[in-house]
Amino acid sequence: MADLSAMLSPKSVAIIGAAPEGQGLRGRILEIMRAHPYAGKIYPVSRTHREVQGLAAFPSIGDVPAPVDLAVLIIPAKFVPDELERCGKAGVKSAVIISSGFAEEPGEAGASMQAELRGIARRYGMAVMGPNSEGFANLDAALCPTFSPAVTPSATPLLPATLNNSRVAVIAQSGGMGFAFFDRGRPKEMAFNHIVTTGNEACLETFDVVEHLLDEGKTDAFLLLLEDIKTAETFRRVAAKALKAGKPIIVNKIGQSDAGRRAAASHTAALAGSYSAFQAMARHYGLIEGADLDEMVDIAQGFLRTGTHLPLGRRVAICTASGGGGGWMADACIAAGLDVPTLDAETRKRIDVHLPSYGTSQNPIDGTAQAIHALGYAGMADLVVDAPSIDSVIVVMSGRAGQRVVEERETLISVKRRATKPILMWSYTLPVPETLTTLAETGYPVFTNMRNCARTLSAMAGYREVREAALRVPEIRNSGSAAKDNVAATLGKSRAVLTEAEARPLLAAYGIGSGDIHLATSAGAAVAAFNIIKQPVALKVQSPDILHKTEAGAVALKLATADDVRRAYEHVLDNARRYAPAASIQGVLIQPMAAPGREVILGINRDDTFGPLLMLGLGGIHVEVLKNVVFAPVPLTPEAATALIGRLRGAALLEAHRGQPAADIPALADLMVRLSQFAADHADTIQEIDLNPVLVHPAGQGATVVDALIVKHTST
Amino acid sequence: MADLSAMLSPKSVAIIGAAPEGQGLRGRILEIMRAHPYAGKIYPVSRTHREVQGLAAFPSIGDVPAPVDLAVLIIPAKFVPDELERCGKAGVKSAVIISSGFAEEPGEAGASMQAELRGIARRYGMAVMGPNSEGFANLDAALCPTFSPAVTPSATPLLPATLNNSRVAVIAQSGGMGFAFFDRGRPKEMAFNHIVTTGNEACLETFDVVEHLLDEGKTDAFLLLLEDIKTAETFRRVAAKALKAGKPIIVNKIGQSDAGRRAAASHTAALAGSYSAFQAMARHYGLIEGADLDEMVDIAQGFLRTGTHLPLGRRVAICTASGGGGGWMADACIAAGLDVPTLDAETRKRIDVHLPSYGTSQNPIDGTAQAIHALGYAGMADLVVDAPSIDSVIVVMSGRAGQRVVEERETLISVKRRATKPILMWSYTLPVPETLTTLAETGYPVFTNMRNCARTLSAMAGYREVREAALRVPEIRNSGSAAKDNVAATLGKSRAVLTEAEARPLLAAYGIGSGDIHLATSAGAAVAAFNIIKQPVALKVQSPDILHKTEAGAVALKLATADDVRRAYEHVLDNARRYAPAASIQGVLIQPMAAPGREVILGINRDDTFGPLLMLGLGGIHVEVLKNVVFAPVPLTPEAATALIGRLRGAALLEAHRGQPAADIPALADLMVRLSQFAADHADTIQEIDLNPVLVHPAGQGATVVDALIVKHTST
Repeated sequence: MADLSAMLSPKSVAIIGAAPEGQGLRGRILEIMRAHPYAGKIYPVSRTHREVQGLAAFPSIGDVPAPVDLAVLIIPAKFVPDELERCGKAGVKSAVIISSGFAEEPGEAGASMQAELRGIARRYGMAVMGPNSEGFANLDAALCPTFSPAVTPSATPLLPATLNNSRVAVIAQSGGMGFAFFDRGRPKEMAFNHIVTTGNEACLETFDVVEHLLDEGKTDAFLLLLEDIKTAETFRRVAAKALKAGKPIIVNKIGQSDAGRRAAASHTAALAGSYSAFQAMARHYGLIEGADLDEMVDIAQGFLRTGTHLPLGRRVAICTASGGGGGWMADACIAAGLDVPTLDAETRKRIDVHLPSYGTSQNPIDGTAQAIHALGYAGMADLVVDAPSIDSVIVVMSGRAGQRVVEERETLISVKRRATKPILMWSYTLPVPETLTTLAETGYPVFTNMRNCARTLSAMAGYREVREAALRVPEIRNSGSAAKDNVAATLGKSRAVLTEAEARPLLAAYGIGSGDIHLATSAGAAVAAFNIIKQPVALKVQSPDILHKTEAGAVALKLATADDVRRAYEHVLDNARRYAPAASIQGVLIQPMAAPGREVILGINRDDTFGPLLMLGLGGIHVEVLKNVVFAPVPLTPEAATALIGRLRGAALLEAHRGQPAADIPALADLMVRLSQFAADHADTIQEIDLNPVLVHPAGQGATVVDALIVKHTST
Repeated sequence: MADLSAMLSPKSVAIIGAAPEGQGLRGRILEIMRAHPYAGKIYPVSRTHREVQGLAAFPSIGDVPAPVDLAVLIIPAKFVPDELERCGKAGVKSAVIISSGFAEEPGEAGASMQAELRGIARRYGMAVMGPNSEGFANLDAALCPTFSPAVTPSATPLLPATLNNSRVAVIAQSGGMGFAFFDRGRPKEMAFNHIVTTGNEACLETFDVVEHLLDEGKTDAFLLLLEDIKTAETFRRVAAKALKAGKPIIVNKIGQSDAGRRAAASHTAALAGSYSAFQAMARHYGLIEGADLDEMVDIAQGFLRTGTHLPLGRRVAICTASGGGGGWMADACIAAGLDVPTLDAETRKRIDVHLPSYGTSQNPIDGTAQAIHALGYAGMADLVVDAPSIDSVIVVMSGRAGQRVVEERETLISVKRRATKPILMWSYTLPVPETLTTLAETGYPVFTNMRNCARTLSAMAGYREVREAALRVPEIRNSGSAAKDNVAATLGKSRAVLTEAEARPLLAAYGIGSGDIHLATSAGAAVAAFNIIKQPVALKVQSPDILHKTEAGAVALKLATADDVRRAYEHVLDNARRYAPAASIQGVLIQPMAAPGREVILGINRDDTFGPLLMLGLGGIHVEVLKNVVFAPVPLTPEAATALIGRLRGAALLEAHRGQPAADIPALADLMVRLSQFAADHADTIQEIDLNPVLVHPAGQGATVVDALIVKHTST
């Protein structure tokens, strides 16, 4: 990847297509850039003007007499490729293409122009952003090559006066939304270092920018708005790097409701939309999904001001002078997946001496106006923050009373310095500027939205959980087993659809289900198999052309005598032939009936972006009617498998119930780990795997794979 | 109920306990009142001062030389009852008790003082609010008898300059939260007429105030924050009145996470917490539940500015210049339960002529900056608002660009005048004052929070649905049937727990299940019953002391021969006696085995506040493990019963699936209506009814009540 420093922190910028003031976007970019004290050089390039906005202009990029780190192109789309080529020849190190009229246009022309841009960028080793970008802003450098009104000069400085070293970066494909994060965060006294809008991402992608900023080491949190993930491998590498570095990524992926679900042969594929895949990946890498601008900005603020003091757990103490406000916040905390436990006796004793008779220390701690008056908000928090029964504190406060907050500045500072747990402020009135400034300076996150406050704490606790689990377990990529090569060889030779008889030996090589199969091609052979099995059996016609065997009547169950087996053999074959006269039939599988167990469906499904994902669902009807399934990237650790089982909405169905013993969760988790390893090892070959159903027997008795199907990936 | 006009719109106010400036709350109330141009008389009452804040003060309320409509009491709790008595004697028409130290204190003293206040209020016909109230504000009258800092004089007027006639009222028990709604709504140019904080509600309750304001007819929407519902009957009457009048109530009930669930004999009771009951009531009366201050204020703003033009359905058109913003809003709409359909061809044709090649009219309509520039936001909305394929419009806009909005003022006005569908504005940047003022004056709701915008549209559509259904169907209260009196007489005489044998005839009188029962007290009689039934039977021991018959082994199923019945008879009785040696046993019920069907649980559960509620859940494990149940107030109309079935998370399980026919939904709904009528008729007598399971047979084949239990209410 080309170095992004030349783009985001350039010493010199050429504006290709620069125009005088008032001449639309082409004029505005230069106007905005010049209005800020950017220390580098700015060179307008214009075919028609010798001078633009008081600066000497050059007829072509080749005429600029000094090295150019960044070229900003704002010229008609059709001229862009040639101009980019000229930039390359002139030794320009990077380019941002503002021009639109590429892949967002109907037809093929735009896409092929983008391919052309990619080629030029590669040839010259140029970092190229866009096209259809709204530019970017490097706020620390006061560099704003963009036409976004969000960075036009105003009374509010680009960076808050109350400056500390924590910085958040925004990267968004959408220009309007990208700068909207900045617009929302400024009144909250948040310091942004970069707003980058990547547009169509013909060359540079969102996660390329994230990686650069991670490597640069000056960004503490990221706000991302994604429309698609272009390169899954970049996503994976950068997301893992950010998690390791402890730099939270708060993200929304647009198009959740629009998931283009592929039509596919099995239920697995029908359920896996691309958003499910993204969610599974986001969870895996500790990405924090935010629902709207406000929530995302608030979560970022929480991380910036909390730093490394993330909560060790989900137990919150709520301090309040308003009984109503405390109770309401408690509801919000519970709804966000936090706990509001009754405090331990010792802590309560310490608090009680400060409370009037009508206050309470149970939690929420209602100090009433009296205690807040005596101790201040920080003083109240200080009484409880060390309690062993809690992991974090929320103070319900009225930010309207700015003077009160200013007066307790010293206490705010000393409590913040001492406390190792996060203390968040929720202001039920709209805070005045003194409140915001004082809390920013003293390092307290402050929220006006109650749910965002609770959600932020929950996100911080969750992020810490995922990160610590990830740091404990090294990422595994493939098994390197001997089995792998054998399976790969067989898979390579096989047809697109592997029947159960073909799939089982491959899966069994990974310890998934039994590989002993009896495939009969005559009634006599079927009976012979039955005599070996010596217990009631099931018969299933094997054909790559019949995926829905039950629907075809090609299955017979619970056959207990040789006569039954003989009759069933003919019957299922007749049914199969009637159902699909042209089907190629391999024979009939004879299989012992499985012992009873909880029915689950386990599968692998290939996502267009991320490749194979493991899918787990409960019982036939739960999957088919209730769509109750969960996804995870492969391979899985045993811990991740167990956690995934716990995330099923109906996971309680696997527990002991009314005399029915608990299901063998470890056996199910083991099966999931093995299947995920199979999928990871053969990621490029597998379209889907369907183990449906798997019967999970009572604890200690394992799980039985009752049916299996593999569909190969046919690249287009 | 005493008339509230004297309290909320008084011609004269006495402040009992008034004090000079700077003397805490007692001084502040008078300060705040005098700072606003209230036109009525203000009389300070003080034992110690002859003059307070420049006004002549009176030593006692009896000394005030003119009639007093309202007395505001801010004196120590222990003096309040005597003072209230003096007010009564002096002919004061109403009182607000700010003093705290009553029922919110530990111990009984506070509660008994509140009872005393109630007595005095009743004796003198006085309207009394509080104690522990933070007072109220009548903004149109510039009357603020409160110490809330939210109404201290400031640069912002109490009512927006852009005044129209739509008003919202806030009623909250919590003073801090009550005035916080006002604090949030003011910058949005919303006009509040009343902020009322009811405190402990010793006399007046929240819904008394709502009723007064409804009757007065000057309030268009209500924001309520409830901590409890004191009188269910008032709630019901007023909620129904508000729905009929089309005055939406936006509400939050604090304590949702804290639901004190009662321990009870059956699953029904264990699942019905008071919040579930409240939710069911709220849904029934079209109350709109809001999650936080911002969301509630935004929903209120939506209703105020939309007036009677509520959306007829859930289909939204989204107009945007930002592709990212449009897509994100579409996600938010879908998540809020709205539809974002592709527009009809004719509408698209009308729009397309205004779009550049890289715009799209499908929906979201991405007009790009070019179309917005040419048409304006209102002009874009105007192109689509009449489309037959949509019910409402959301415009994604940048409120930062105030001048642009001001410039299209005339178009905004004309589109608003003409359109019959709501047009909502979502500003992805923070709007400047000109934007807010212009949109307030021209009548467009404007949101900065994306999800609140979508949620508001969804709430408006839902409110209209509930209201129209309620106006169609008259509220029914009881059946007036002959069965009612017979059942009431039998219930009156029976013990606390009615076994199935006792419950069935009563239920059958309402057409619920079969009333033909065979209760055998000897093996011979059991066999005789079997010979009458002539199909496989179940045997169940009947005892009011054994509620969990299966657990006791007191049930035998699928008995197909006389011998089986005889043996089972002895066996179940033995088991029952071993399980509960002291149990009183009525005999053994012999019952035909029910035909197969989908298993549901149907019940009645008494809520402490609202009385009987109907509960519906799917199958044993769905109720017991997955807690998948829904509640509704009784009685139910057939439409409401059908809607309730649809609200079950697993309702799809009742549909046709894999060759299994659809369940007989009308039969289930009919059973629900009958059971709800039973519960309504005997509301005071019933603690719970448990029909568990009910088997719903395939369509057209009805439903079978397999087991039944009634527990009577024993008032404490």
